[in-house]
Amino acid sequence: PSSSSHSPMIEKEIPAAEKPRTFLREVDENTSNSSDVRARFEKMIREAQDSVCAAIEAADGGGKFKEDVWSRPGGGGGISRVLQDGAVWEKAGVNVSVVYGIMPPDAYRAAKPTENGDVKPGPIPFFAAGISSVLHPKNPFAPTLHFNYRYFETDAPKDVPGAPRQWWFGGGTDLTPAYIFDEDVKHFHQVQKTTCDKFNSDFYPRFKKWCDDYFYIKHRGERRGLGGIFFDDLNAYDQDMLLAFATECANSVIPAYIPIIERRKDTPFTERHKAWQQLRRGRYVEFNLVYDRGTTFGLKTGGRIESILVSLPLTARWEYDHQPEEGSEEWNLLDACINPREWV
Amino acid sequence: PSSSSHSPMIEKEIPAAEKPRTFLREVDENTSNSSDVRARFEKMIREAQDSVCAAIEAADGGGKFKEDVWSRPGGGGGISRVLQDGAVWEKAGVNVSVVYGIMPPDAYRAAKPTENGDVKPGPIPFFAAGISSVLHPKNPFAPTLHFNYRYFETDAPKDVPGAPRQWWFGGGTDLTPAYIFDEDVKHFHQVQKTTCDKFNSDFYPRFKKWCDDYFYIKHRGERRGLGGIFFDDLNAYDQDMLLAFATECANSVIPAYIPIIERRKDTPFTERHKAWQQLRRGRYVEFNLVYDRGTTFGLKTGGRIESILVSLPLTARWEYDHQPEEGSEEWNLLDACINPREWV
Repeated sequence: PSSSSHSPMIEKEIPAAEKPRTFLREVDENTSNSSDVRARFEKMIREAQDSVCAAIEAADGGGKFKEDVWSRPGGGGGISRVLQDGAVWEKAGVNVSVVYGIMPPDAYRAAKPTENGDVKPGPIPFFAAGISSVLHPKNPFAPTLHFNYRYFETDAPKDVPGAPRQWWFGGGTDLTPAYIFDEDVKHFHQVQKTTCDKFNSDFYPRFKKWCDDYFYIKHRGERRGLGGIFFDDLNAYDQDMLLAFATECANSVIPAYIPIIERRKDTPFTERHKAWQQLRRGRYVEFNLVYDRGTTFGLKTGGRIESILVSLPLTARWEYDHQPEEGSEEWNLLDACINPREWV
Repeated sequence: PSSSSHSPMIEKEIPAAEKPRTFLREVDENTSNSSDVRARFEKMIREAQDSVCAAIEAADGGGKFKEDVWSRPGGGGGISRVLQDGAVWEKAGVNVSVVYGIMPPDAYRAAKPTENGDVKPGPIPFFAAGISSVLHPKNPFAPTLHFNYRYFETDAPKDVPGAPRQWWFGGGTDLTPAYIFDEDVKHFHQVQKTTCDKFNSDFYPRFKKWCDDYFYIKHRGERRGLGGIFFDDLNAYDQDMLLAFATECANSVIPAYIPIIERRKDTPFTERHKAWQQLRRGRYVEFNLVYDRGTTFGLKTGGRIESILVSLPLTARWEYDHQPEEGSEEWNLLDACINPREWV
């Protein structure tokens, strides 16, 4: 490979001075049903970004988000907000983006590997909009939170006349503590369940298991954290219902997470606790760079690198052959990452 | 994925109390030419491990290597040596391993992606032996060194009667400083060139460029470090000559690296220098987890994880959108990672 062989599948982004009303292409601002979902989803994620950032700044009590707006000449763009070295959070990123792109066959696999053995490989135009956030606190007893809600459409395949465009929703919210406080994890999962149950009583058990499966670090035989909910390629339901569900999930981030942070942010800790948190952040890096679909998809399609990798912690650590002492608090966390538990 | 879907292509390793004379299968200890190369290569890498570890301990003046020996019931095994938190090195790993395995199609691509469009996918038994080392110093002015020399053989394909087994050599030695001292980089590259020139005057220019190409972090548009030499899939030469070449390369690690460490290990530094070193170590992690063939091959085939990931630094850092000031020392390093230079 060389610089010249770096062929991004989407255009290079350009910094923008101001936030546009919409990142959609003009042609998508008409009233066809598909465009309507695109526009409503963009509005939802931008409102969620505002409300989550406001809540994080209020809870941090010191740090402020830095905002970067960018767009692409052919349509699409995004708003990245990062709070670094705050009072409570070491690094907190909340991004929204709208992407018009061409999927290379391998990135298409990364975005949608299942149920598609029948799709012929070949570049496929796609639309993607999403909100993505990772919040890494400083205190080792305060957990990391990740959430991401996204809407995807591919164009109708040109070589299959009459075939429809595909659409699907994906997303999830999951918790990654370095130490377990049962009441925290139960509260977190209960909020996910309550949100799911408003729409479909199958959702929580199904998406909880999907989350445990998805965040599996195969080479370690353990999960990144203690899960939550995760779903992808979701289209076997009414589109309006799924849009409402994704909206409700995004709106439940604050009540699921902030009460835990308030309880743990000032807990005294030692170097041992900090080192363990740093080791678990190393695992976070391993998962995101090796397995995470959004990350690998973004790296392959030439997305905005700083936005994609804002999910990585400010600092991480790898010790050779570290083994927590059996029965210790660290061992308890690791055990729960190896053998997922039912929390509600 | 779940625990049960974790299907390593090689058996689980077992800790061993003592180092065996050889990790080869008994059947490979006879005198056929192929086995002879296997045995001679194993002897070479084990001697190189001893001499490099002795030189590192002497230069460190405090830290000692911890040794782990492991083997697999069906043959093969390895010796991992790690020095952690020494006086000079933060983390230094020097591993040798001998692996008998079955290549899954995707790992086969990771191990040998070129010139093999014609090889039918399907599990292929292979033999691999190698020495692999990453040495991360504490001082931000003292560079990280990586070297790896390996010998590969696949079995003759069963479904193509008369087709021979394949063999090839791979490897390289490369330098990753956080700050450039011209005399250091020139010395390092001069040693590589002198070593190469003893065998073939084409080797240094060809392997220097190969190294610049290989350690390219595509999503960043920059290289991991300042290169050295790299080659892979090398078999278009006499096998004995390539074995002698790999041996000479391994033996040149100490004279190429230790004089640089002696000059830089005690250089005074500030928090700014340390933070930049940590950011560059973040890039090191990105390259190894996303692109490095040995790492991705090892993770996919179910290799010994702690040995594979000993290459990761003890600590690393990711700041959002960090840009070194134009004209600064940090900018100079980044420029050399983006635009490779000729050092000799």
